[in-house]
Amino acid sequence: MSTQQPLAVGLVGTGRMGSFHAETLARRLPGVRLAAVADPAPGAAQRLGDRLGCPRATTDVDELINDPQLDAVVIVTPARTHAGLVEAAALAGKAVYCEKPMAVTLAEADRAIEAAGKAGVPLQVGFNRRYDTGFRAAHDKIAAGAIGTPQLLRSLTRDPKLADPARVPPWTIFLETLIHDFDTLRHLNPGAAAVEVFAMADALVRPDFKDRGLLDTAVVTIRFDNGAIATAEASFQAVYGYDVRGEVFGSAGMLTMGDIRRTHLTTYGPDGTSAECVAYDQDLFHDAYVAELADFADSVRTGRPPAVTGEDARAALSIALAAIESITSGGPVRIDRPRHP
Amino acid sequence: MSTQQPLAVGLVGTGRMGSFHAETLARRLPGVRLAAVADPAPGAAQRLGDRLGCPRATTDVDELINDPQLDAVVIVTPARTHAGLVEAAALAGKAVYCEKPMAVTLAEADRAIEAAGKAGVPLQVGFNRRYDTGFRAAHDKIAAGAIGTPQLLRSLTRDPKLADPARVPPWTIFLETLIHDFDTLRHLNPGAAAVEVFAMADALVRPDFKDRGLLDTAVVTIRFDNGAIATAEASFQAVYGYDVRGEVFGSAGMLTMGDIRRTHLTTYGPDGTSAECVAYDQDLFHDAYVAELADFADSVRTGRPPAVTGEDARAALSIALAAIESITSGGPVRIDRPRHP
Amino acid sequence: MSTQQPLAVGLVGTGRMGSFHAETLARRLPGVRLAAVADPAPGAAQRLGDRLGCPRATTDVDELINDPQLDAVVIVTPARTHAGLVEAAALAGKAVYCEKPMAVTLAEADRAIEAAGKAGVPLQVGFNRRYDTGFRAAHDKIAAGAIGTPQLLRSLTRDPKLADPARVPPWTIFLETLIHDFDTLRHLNPGAAAVEVFAMADALVRPDFKDRGLLDTAVVTIRFDNGAIATAEASFQAVYGYDVRGEVFGSAGMLTMGDIRRTHLTTYGPDGTSAECVAYDQDLFHDAYVAELADFADSVRTGRPPAVTGEDARAALSIALAAIESITSGGPVRIDRPRHP
Amino acid sequence: MSTQQPLAVGLVGTGRMGSFHAETLARRLPGVRLAAVADPAPGAAQRLGDRLGCPRATTDVDELINDPQLDAVVIVTPARTHAGLVEAAALAGKAVYCEKPMAVTLAEADRAIEAAGKAGVPLQVGFNRRYDTGFRAAHDKIAAGAIGTPQLLRSLTRDPKLADPARVPPWTIFLETLIHDFDTLRHLNPGAAAVEVFAMADALVRPDFKDRGLLDTAVVTIRFDNGAIATAEASFQAVYGYDVRGEVFGSAGMLTMGDIRRTHLTTYGPDGTSAECVAYDQDLFHDAYVAELADFADSVRTGRPPAVTGEDARAALSIALAAIESITSGGPVRIDRPRHP
Repeated sequence: MSTQQPLAVGLVGTGRMGSFHAETLARRLPGVRLAAVADPAPGAAQRLGDRLGCPRATTDVDELINDPQLDAVVIVTPARTHAGLVEAAALAGKAVYCEKPMAVTLAEADRAIEAAGKAGVPLQVGFNRRYDTGFRAAHDKIAAGAIGTPQLLRSLTRDPKLADPARVPPWTIFLETLIHDFDTLRHLNPGAAAVEVFAMADALVRPDFKDRGLLDTAVVTIRFDNGAIATAEASFQAVYGYDVRGEVFGSAGMLTMGDIRRTHLTTYGPDGTSAECVAYDQDLFHDAYVAELADFADSVRTGRPPAVTGEDARAALSIALAAIESITSGGPVRIDRPRHP
Repeated sequence: MSTQQPLAVGLVGTGRMGSFHAETLARRLPGVRLAAVADPAPGAAQRLGDRLGCPRATTDVDELINDPQLDAVVIVTPARTHAGLVEAAALAGKAVYCEKPMAVTLAEADRAIEAAGKAGVPLQVGFNRRYDTGFRAAHDKIAAGAIGTPQLLRSLTRDPKLADPARVPPWTIFLETLIHDFDTLRHLNPGAAAVEVFAMADALVRPDFKDRGLLDTAVVTIRFDNGAIATAEASFQAVYGYDVRGEVFGSAGMLTMGDIRRTHLTTYGPDGTSAECVAYDQDLFHDAYVAELADFADSVRTGRPPAVTGEDARAALSIALAAIESITSGGPVRIDRPRHP
Repeated sequence: MSTQQPLAVGLVGTGRMGSFHAETLARRLPGVRLAAVADPAPGAAQRLGDRLGCPRATTDVDELINDPQLDAVVIVTPARTHAGLVEAAALAGKAVYCEKPMAVTLAEADRAIEAAGKAGVPLQVGFNRRYDTGFRAAHDKIAAGAIGTPQLLRSLTRDPKLADPARVPPWTIFLETLIHDFDTLRHLNPGAAAVEVFAMADALVRPDFKDRGLLDTAVVTIRFDNGAIATAEASFQAVYGYDVRGEVFGSAGMLTMGDIRRTHLTTYGPDGTSAECVAYDQDLFHDAYVAELADFADSVRTGRPPAVTGEDARAALSIALAAIESITSGGPVRIDRPRHP
Repeated sequence: MSTQQPLAVGLVGTGRMGSFHAETLARRLPGVRLAAVADPAPGAAQRLGDRLGCPRATTDVDELINDPQLDAVVIVTPARTHAGLVEAAALAGKAVYCEKPMAVTLAEADRAIEAAGKAGVPLQVGFNRRYDTGFRAAHDKIAAGAIGTPQLLRSLTRDPKLADPARVPPWTIFLETLIHDFDTLRHLNPGAAAVEVFAMADALVRPDFKDRGLLDTAVVTIRFDNGAIATAEASFQAVYGYDVRGEVFGSAGMLTMGDIRRTHLTTYGPDGTSAECVAYDQDLFHDAYVAELADFADSVRTGRPPAVTGEDARAALSIALAAIESITSGGPVRIDRPRHP
């Protein structure tokens, strides 16, 4: 490895998650270098690039995507821009890593998948929980038959704080939050496809924003084609911290996963026993965020297919869209099997 | 208390739960005596009575219900006979304790409630989880505002073993199993009423009995009139034991409850750490089963209203019936507020 | 059982623990009745007897011990009176249950054991932890070889509150508190005998009472003749509650036991996750206290030897006395094997 | 930081721990580069250097230590060579990081400390647990008074497997294993000094090596000058994995720390609930091992004193030597305060 040229990666989007990924590319991955950063916001890319010693920074995203010196592009922009950037990067012949959701319509998901396919470039999507040691071990055990056939599943995501409800785009809870849980449920029910979805949602954290379309609390019930029934649950505000947990109950056993404790320290005092919780996703999934980019870099270097594909992104999206339709119609929604592959 | 006459209680139904309650009445409750047992099955009441030193045993349930020496009647018969026996016992002027479900139609629930009301006798229903120390402490904290307004709730029941699917009456999973969870969800969301119900269910434990109407796995989503969204989940077969847990997430915190460990012993060996699980409901809820009858006896002696009423039973039943209707119709079902009280 | 005469038990000593045992005898044990209570303090026995509906109450302990209507005597008096009362009750032909410590010198322990042996009466000692489901399961697993040969053991007792240091007799921490741990360590290291003891102790809770001889904190290291090394640890004041735990590490695994949580309820709030602790020994060991008297009654009825014997009490006492000698001498102390069986 | 020259670090010793530290220096620490590796074993340094892309590899340790291109030296050789290498590296003007124990006699500890002092170079010792998030949080809480004054402490280390008892140098359990616990106990009892030590030890894992001086199991009781009594416990073979835990009981509360679970995944099956344990110290303390070298690099760069000093190493060593003397003499041993600073 020491003799190889490091992988030159460009990153688009310098927000909170973009900065974390940039730091990972710059510092945490041997054999990888952060070669360029782009962000249309004036000065943003420059500031991040300076901090990380990245040689190139630009406000021109197209320029980065078409930079011939780059082997791969990491897309960490707002959700609605993802699919177009994936398509552009694939057309430019770059390996592509895209944060979730890869797309917000099935049509653009299909175009992105097709573009990567035609270009023959790897396309990986940021379902980081697949790289968390606990969730990964759960998947491996289930795939190995340790709990028999999954019958009941649960996945939940609760963010610690809803800062500004006015800036939450419509359907965010399904397209950006629960999309993780939809992927987790698919991952923990290997080989099964969602066939029916029913959703209930409300603005319980900020009821004053309900008439502007805010949904900050949701429960989605999903039936899979192997019979399993799953629940995905989300809230935009858990006062105790960042809460991500899963449970898979099968014919031969059960698995539970997710740990919201910050450390292994327990305190005992006059009020009983206590422990502190994790406040940020980047604390809870720090190692998983690094591992997914390491795995992406490895798939680019070795030419093997990425572990989390555009098709995975499309399948999770189809559940999210069905949940949105269920909210709109008030009833359950069936999901058709995708026609392609 | 030592100078009072003990409360004379008759018990109807000598199955597994009936025998446990009989033993509690005979031996575990100071100030209470098991004065008579009845079971239409030849010899059943006699055998139980002999074992517990109960002076009277009969196959004639009406005789027991109308026995002038009895202060109270405890009904532990098959579910479909409950409401009629409650009505009869109330007419006979007895205080009544009835196992869940108190009724399987709203009409008979209303008749039973009305009969007890007219007779002026206490009527308590066997939602034992309300007497479990953990669930009770959860309710008390929630009622005191410790976690703010409930927003997301979960209650689940998994029985350890589906012995004979051929003997499971239709809709049992809703009427007899999840009825506990429906009551728990109401109890942990104090003052709120269920307004919308959606259910998914299947025969996943024994798919070979699906065409005979078996439903052994179910997930029910419930919307309450305070906005909270709840999930109730059941399976007839958990290979690891008897599993009852709850979770209430509110605007100011979360509570989790339920413990399936048999003891506080943990074993560490070459395969990791392990602990044994509880196999029987009478292990998990032993103290709660005793506490609910003690509380019933106390309400009879003091004249105060029972803590779990016929109205509670009716409200849980209305959720169960809505879940059944949801399965039949394939869509969500609205629950109307009860007209009386 | 219903045709048998109930076992007539007299109880001596009406303090906190005496009252609890009296209530157990009066109400919690089928086939047992509390026939008499005695306490030299004027009015104490009468008050307790009245409350429990016990027909006889006296200030004359000898009268109770020699009451021909009693089958058994339960001794719950101050520690230094135990051995003499055991001897007297054995001479009177009563089955004897004695709270720990059965004696405070080896000579009086030997006399008590001899008296019971000559009279042919059962003698059981109140090491209640042997009847706790977790500690009992640990013993059974160890005895069955589940963790191989014990190599390192730990047992600890922390009381919640040191109310009045002026009223603590000398060496109480060894003779009355750690005596439990010494028995637990023997019980969890079946068949092994303590051979060497080293103790460190201090007045850390109330250093102002150190010059009056108070020891409120102690650590005792014990070597057993199977090589195992054990630690017993005690404090008179744990602000978080009543804390009793054990750990046994063996050649093939480890067991941990002890649970200080009051219920299975966990609370999550802005400060993290929390749970309440147990405040009283009678909460933590409620069922164990009942089970040990039930077992005693059973051994009296069936004639089988009691499960916790005078010899067990003597062996624990010999460790306590060695710990005291270690404090006095400042060095380790060897324990000789008892000469008689 | 991006404009600074990276810190050039040389590493001596390419065993299991040396290789891990080398990889950290080469890949995990921004601003640090692994500039040279040395190991007297032919080929060992070369192989490690090749794997990590390190430009220089040598069998000549002195050469590395005196290499003018190096800013700092990391010593990961066998214990008995540590102090001499520290001295040599300090004389060469290098910042020094030395694995524990820094020395095996107080005289050589004093010489090493003096050499670093005279040279004015930072000297940090590898007590990695101070960098574990749980142990660190415990220290910080204790230092802030969260549990009042420490009264009872416990620290334990159990290695997973005693591979070759013939290759264990005498007193290893005190000098190399429990030295961690002695430091942890000092760290968790801030400002207090050990004054009395009593040790029991044996060859329980491999009794067949007892006559060759093996001690594989030990319990050490330590009295501190603030009254606190501590227990340190070690075994060379825990079949369930690598076990490091701590407990600090104080006048106002208790802290427990240490987690031997490999992930947050829990499995429930017919035998109950289970979880896998950690098998290697480099799994359990992965992040702590990285953090201690990061902190060392930071102290070198900034000139601030290291967080774990030669004096800390000497203080832990003095407890270890007292424990050895206690084994030899069979009695407790007093520790005198160090004369210098």
